[in-house]
Amino acid sequence: MKVLVLGGDGFCGWPTSLHLSDIGHDVTIVDNLSRRKIDLELEVESLTPIRPVGERLAVWRALTGKEIGFVNLDLAEEYDRLEALIRALEPDAIVHFGEQRAAPYSMRSVAAKRYTVDNNVRATHNVLVAVVASGLDVAVVHLGTMGVYGYGWSGSAPIPEGYLTVKVPTPDGEIDREILHPANPGSVYHMTKTLDQLLFAFYAKNDGLRVTDLHQGIVWGTQTPQTALDERLINRFDYDGDYGTVLNRFLMQAAIGHPLTVHGTGGQTRAFIHIRDTVRCVQIALENPPARGDKVKVFNQVTETHRVRDLAELVAKLTGVEVAYLPNPRVEADENELNVERAQFVALGLDPTFLSEGLLEEVRDVASRYKDRADTSKIVARSVWRKGMEVAPDLVVR
Amino acid sequence: MKVLVLGGDGFCGWPTSLHLSDIGHDVTIVDNLSRRKIDLELEVESLTPIRPVGERLAVWRALTGKEIGFVNLDLAEEYDRLEALIRALEPDAIVHFGEQRAAPYSMRSVAAKRYTVDNNVRATHNVLVAVVASGLDVAVVHLGTMGVYGYGWSGSAPIPEGYLTVKVPTPDGEIDREILHPANPGSVYHMTKTLDQLLFAFYAKNDGLRVTDLHQGIVWGTQTPQTALDERLINRFDYDGDYGTVLNRFLMQAAIGHPLTVHGTGGQTRAFIHIRDTVRCVQIALENPPARGDKVKVFNQVTETHRVRDLAELVAKLTGVEVAYLPNPRVEADENELNVERAQFVALGLDPTFLSEGLLEEVRDVASRYKDRADTSKIVARSVWRKGMEVAPDLVVR
Repeated sequence: MKVLVLGGDGFCGWPTSLHLSDIGHDVTIVDNLSRRKIDLELEVESLTPIRPVGERLAVWRALTGKEIGFVNLDLAEEYDRLEALIRALEPDAIVHFGEQRAAPYSMRSVAAKRYTVDNNVRATHNVLVAVVASGLDVAVVHLGTMGVYGYGWSGSAPIPEGYLTVKVPTPDGEIDREILHPANPGSVYHMTKTLDQLLFAFYAKNDGLRVTDLHQGIVWGTQTPQTALDERLINRFDYDGDYGTVLNRFLMQAAIGHPLTVHGTGGQTRAFIHIRDTVRCVQIALENPPARGDKVKVFNQVTETHRVRDLAELVAKLTGVEVAYLPNPRVEADENELNVERAQFVALGLDPTFLSEGLLEEVRDVASRYKDRADTSKIVARSVWRKGMEVAPDLVVR
Repeated sequence: MKVLVLGGDGFCGWPTSLHLSDIGHDVTIVDNLSRRKIDLELEVESLTPIRPVGERLAVWRALTGKEIGFVNLDLAEEYDRLEALIRALEPDAIVHFGEQRAAPYSMRSVAAKRYTVDNNVRATHNVLVAVVASGLDVAVVHLGTMGVYGYGWSGSAPIPEGYLTVKVPTPDGEIDREILHPANPGSVYHMTKTLDQLLFAFYAKNDGLRVTDLHQGIVWGTQTPQTALDERLINRFDYDGDYGTVLNRFLMQAAIGHPLTVHGTGGQTRAFIHIRDTVRCVQIALENPPARGDKVKVFNQVTETHRVRDLAELVAKLTGVEVAYLPNPRVEADENELNVERAQFVALGLDPTFLSEGLLEEVRDVASRYKDRADTSKIVARSVWRKGMEVAPDLVVR
């Protein structure tokens, strides 16, 4: 299958590109390297040393004989090049990771809020318009987020995979209607993914586009079998307050003996998935696209759920590091239940990596190994959801 | 009250600006004149001769002694100027009409689809971000559209004013949940207004912004008491296939003896409102804002509903002009019912102008008076919802 991976240089995009190439697909990465540029802006670096994309691809080719193409292209700003690329390559599918993906970053400033909306909405819309304009039947697989559903909306009911059947009152009695699960995003970033959903629904309806939206939980872990082949293929590992995901942050903190930073009570329950399962889920989604004329196909890309403080306590117990409770910079409930339907991927063959198996390996092989690269001043989350929520600048930096 | 009217040079914005000025508000228009520029692009003109904005404002000042400010500013592209303007003027409220507002235009080309999304989403988001950044408590009143609800979704049930209470199944039995009415937009333009709704909901929740969304029906009519004071204050009247609204198109066609162009069966039922009521509704919305911390307040800005072919037959009967049924360029149902809740504005004092009173006046005072300015080659709707729906170029042009 010929596949364009948009955002194929990023944390999820890179291992996905290698995985798809490894199983025999003809992969071309499209990326404007924005994730690397934001590192420069934030003055942070991946804990793992990541190589320039050209070197990554040359190593992959040398090791496996497989060629992955690369096009440096801004999806939001360079529409004409995007359309020309799709017309020239005639891909069977597009995997779309090409969006700004950090909630804290999306809240940190006027510029970051605007960039997140302007970039993400235009990127997604441009992809859809370009596919329609090409006249080609290209399946689109998009990385969404569990955050489109929000937390606690439907009490004890499990969060369905995208759609919900509700009863609507009418003068002639109640009728059943299937709706897209109501959107309840918790940040500007998550909000952009709720906008994406409406774009997908419209283009599926009006133009018959075949779209799959993957509502992913919080990713943890670093390596896949392919990125582990050579250190020059290593995946990024973010630990800073904006881009670091909660569990990876704990692992890195444990490796350097820094208190595990829980923002708020830690009563927030979140959904998790290992990066190894992310790449398999994308493969499964590519192999099971909707038919032309179908509604958008939605998967919950999640393998387990945990309360944040339970994770902190687990890592603390494993490593002997203490837990520090800091003010919560987010506007969110202190505590929530989370029950997520996730039968589809399991039925299609996903065999998950659970925390219970992978945590120690991650601490040993990644966090400890690269701990000398850590800048501890970047650990605490500083982006706040509202003005006035800022905390003392010297909070828990050692 | 100090009010910024974004898009205050347009079809709804201009008469609203005059009305708000007339009743004593301190009005500043912000507009990039995009509507006039699109006229140039489409090679069409308002049937009524509209004057440059500076002349309009000078005439208003000369006739009434009231000053309306004007700032030529692109909401999507000039964020810094927008934020500086809000900080400098400290408005009590912002009325936001500043979006590309024609469904056919939004479907006519790749460029128009992209412009509509890029312009509308960024404009709305910039306004919200700028209000938050200013730290001022500015109420935002936005012109939405009935098209966010789509047509026929809930059978015979009336379309509520924004929110719907549904029953959601849970393991412990059904629970009631209030949801934003599911979005079902029929064009890229309408889709942007469904995106706007999610932006409003987020900023109301996260930042306590006070937002009112007015889901307006199809506007007909031209003049308000203020625009009728002097010909140089006249409002625009669009009759072309992209920007002309259905009833105004029929009136103009009747005035020149052109067949009334019904696209499709004419079985589509739509909601209508006279421009005189639009300006009153905006006033009422400004006088009844939500409280800080409230959810977005939604009104259905509609006074009556009609089937399109019934309107055509009414105008045909009134004027003796025949009805021509043309292919439908839109992806939509041939027939739909439409039952709209609209109690809020009536309870707050709106006394509507109904078709039965205003139609003949409109034909006599506007359509007939300016009929020599009509370019009949621009009447037929040429923008199509999908490639392949185009019809013969010489269709019903006389």
